Amino acid sequence: MNQMVSKMEILENGTVTSPQGYKAAAVACGLKKERQPDLALLASERDCTAAAVFTKNQVVAAPVILDRETLEANDSALRGVVANAGNANACTGEPGYRAAQQMQQSTAFALDCRPEQVLVLSTGVIGVQMPMPQINAGIDGAARRLARERGAAVAEAIMTTDTFPKQLAVHVDLPEGPVTIGGMAKGAGMIHPDMATMLAVITTDAAAPAGLLRELLRNAVDESFNRISVDGDTSTNDTVLVLANGASGVTVEGGAGGEAFAQGLNYVCMELAKMIVRDGEGASKFVAIQVTGAEDESAAHAVAETVATSALVKTALAGSDANWGRVLAAAGRAGVSLDQRRLALTVAAPDGRPLQLVDGGEPTDYEEADAAAIFAGGEIVIHLDLGQGGAETTVWTCDLTHDYVTINADYRT
Amino acid sequence: MNQMVSKMEILENGTVTSPQGYKAAAVACGLKKERQPDLALLASERDCTAAAVFTKNQVVAAPVILDRETLEANDSALRGVVANAGNANACTGEPGYRAAQQMQQSTAFALDCRPEQVLVLSTGVIGVQMPMPQINAGIDGAARRLARERGAAVAEAIMTTDTFPKQLAVHVDLPEGPVTIGGMAKGAGMIHPDMATMLAVITTDAAAPAGLLRELLRNAVDESFNRISVDGDTSTNDTVLVLANGASGVTVEGGAGGEAFAQGLNYVCMELAKMIVRDGEGASKFVAIQVTGAEDESAAHAVAETVATSALVKTALAGSDANWGRVLAAAGRAGVSLDQRRLALTVAAPDGRPLQLVDGGEPTDYEEADAAAIFAGGEIVIHLDLGQGGAETTVWTCDLTHDYVTINADYRT
Repeated sequence: MNQMVSKMEILENGTVTSPQGYKAAAVACGLKKERQPDLALLASERDCTAAAVFTKNQVVAAPVILDRETLEANDSALRGVVANAGNANACTGEPGYRAAQQMQQSTAFALDCRPEQVLVLSTGVIGVQMPMPQINAGIDGAARRLARERGAAVAEAIMTTDTFPKQLAVHVDLPEGPVTIGGMAKGAGMIHPDMATMLAVITTDAAAPAGLLRELLRNAVDESFNRISVDGDTSTNDTVLVLANGASGVTVEGGAGGEAFAQGLNYVCMELAKMIVRDGEGASKFVAIQVTGAEDESAAHAVAETVATSALVKTALAGSDANWGRVLAAAGRAGVSLDQRRLALTVAAPDGRPLQLVDGGEPTDYEEADAAAIFAGGEIVIHLDLGQGGAETTVWTCDLTHDYVTINADYRT
Repeated sequence: MNQMVSKMEILENGTVTSPQGYKAAAVACGLKKERQPDLALLASERDCTAAAVFTKNQVVAAPVILDRETLEANDSALRGVVANAGNANACTGEPGYRAAQQMQQSTAFALDCRPEQVLVLSTGVIGVQMPMPQINAGIDGAARRLARERGAAVAEAIMTTDTFPKQLAVHVDLPEGPVTIGGMAKGAGMIHPDMATMLAVITTDAAAPAGLLRELLRNAVDESFNRISVDGDTSTNDTVLVLANGASGVTVEGGAGGEAFAQGLNYVCMELAKMIVRDGEGASKFVAIQVTGAEDESAAHAVAETVATSALVKTALAGSDANWGRVLAAAGRAGVSLDQRRLALTVAAPDGRPLQLVDGGEPTDYEEADAAAIFAGGEIVIHLDLGQGGAETTVWTCDLTHDYVTINADYRT
């Protein structure tokens, strides 16, 4: 813990409405089976600056197109976010775009603001048109229920195959005064660097210029959401959004305050990202892939990501099988020049003593039982040293289990 | 069928010893459980020219290193191939290299030829040293059993998680006279373009200069083994090998004869490649991914491969779920510039009428039952048109099932 981090406090039961000046509500409008909450509103009492990072997928959902346009027109006077689960509004063409616009307009009407003050998020099945009468009724109903206590309800409403809601909040003491940062996220499959079927909304009662917010968010996403992988698939809808409403009376403008705020933002993003991996579809293990000794950071990333997305590595993890050859084989096809005689591999439980399995490209004389004990754990650190240089990275992933297949073979049925 | 193909005849029960002048044998030397055959010899009565294509993985097995050296020193007087399953001899360092050399020497001694006339193939678990006493005994035993009738036995001995042996042979009538081309392959997981945990040996009784053989093999592999994907993993051991012993008295030297021979070779490679996909670990469906309308061939390939390796697409296929949005989402992350409003998607049974699901990036008003019927079949053709240009490609893949997870979670146990 460095000095900056020591000024941060994690709130009990923190949500997106832990920062001052936000209200939320969720209702069931019929997009999910069994009438679970599936439509969420988040409203700020004051205008917010905002920044967002969107999917790099070339096939993007209508809300992503609309939000990009909205933020281009207005990134300093946002008032609300409407989000739904159960329908991604992706690959829905012109009718889908009009549906997203209608969601924006209905929400603006309900919140008594202008359409360009509202952002829209959708997640769920691709290629189905939105049932607008239900959606509009849901927006009306949610707007009537808006309350600060309902922050946790929106984190639940945006869940799809998630098994638990993902949210937290932190207090950060800036030199200028205390501020709060809250966040929620959803996403369990289609999770991969360059994001995922992943939505995250971060709120703060700090004030911050939109340009600074964009820069801080981009850095935070690079260190968190862009380092996790569940299945290598990236989605059409990925969005990470940050809203800053200034209700705390504290303004972030760079310097020590900016650094402390960035640490809080990074922490919230990182924790949300790790929650997503822990809740990876069917996941039974949480795995950190550390790559060190790379020639440069992009090489380290390429190797770590290739290992993290290897179906063979991930099924071996599911089987608690210390089949480390698959880690080396995955590294070898990462498109990075390697000298296999320099490879070293150790594995460990998060707080346990590392066990070296490979040295100079050859197996050490480790005890199979020791390796098996580590691979049987719920959290595993796999550390591959390439022996070539000083660059390193860590990515987080999970195992590939029967439950992943079950969840995804029958997602729509 | 064009004129060239009509000159080709597929042999009943064809094997690698269908071409004249080859003998084979397989024995169990204890590398596989339950004493199944795991060591194979293939011998030619005459010197062969030879060519090979090896894995592009940077982590390569000892036999790959040794065979590259051997073929560099001698590509025109090969006499035999020794192959084992159950141990990949990969990530075994210097001791592993010496083991591969010893396999080469023992085989040369048994076949009464020089070591540089023998190639070595291994497949199986990574990171375990070869048990040389058993291997040497196995080589001796196999050499004593060599016979032309035992061609099918070697295809069985090289199987790992394969559920059926993969082999065939064709007669081709060249203008210069008739020749035979036989082939066998193994490989069910770690299968991906740029090859796979995949071994293939192709034999012919044609004579052909090694340079021509190399060129023809490279083309054949590009159109066949490099277009299949089971799980996106490529292995440390992949090798496709062709031997030409000239026992037919017919020499291939380019021109019409070269083209006819190439067609036979391509056919053998393509059929072996498709057998590998059909036997993909846990596969229940054989799926062709056709991409048309791409700006260039590399874009077509990138899209087809990304779709073919998407865990979400492959689990939807396993569930017979016409969740086509995942196909478009995978295409969108292939690193290729796309206009989603131009995308068209049709699906079909191999001989059935195509059903258009997406037109101009939007769902058509197809009947869900019609789509479900196609996705319920054992063979599916998925055709994505990008609407951008004239380039196209096809890759073959299979679904990702519970059985894939079962097979790979417990591979070593």
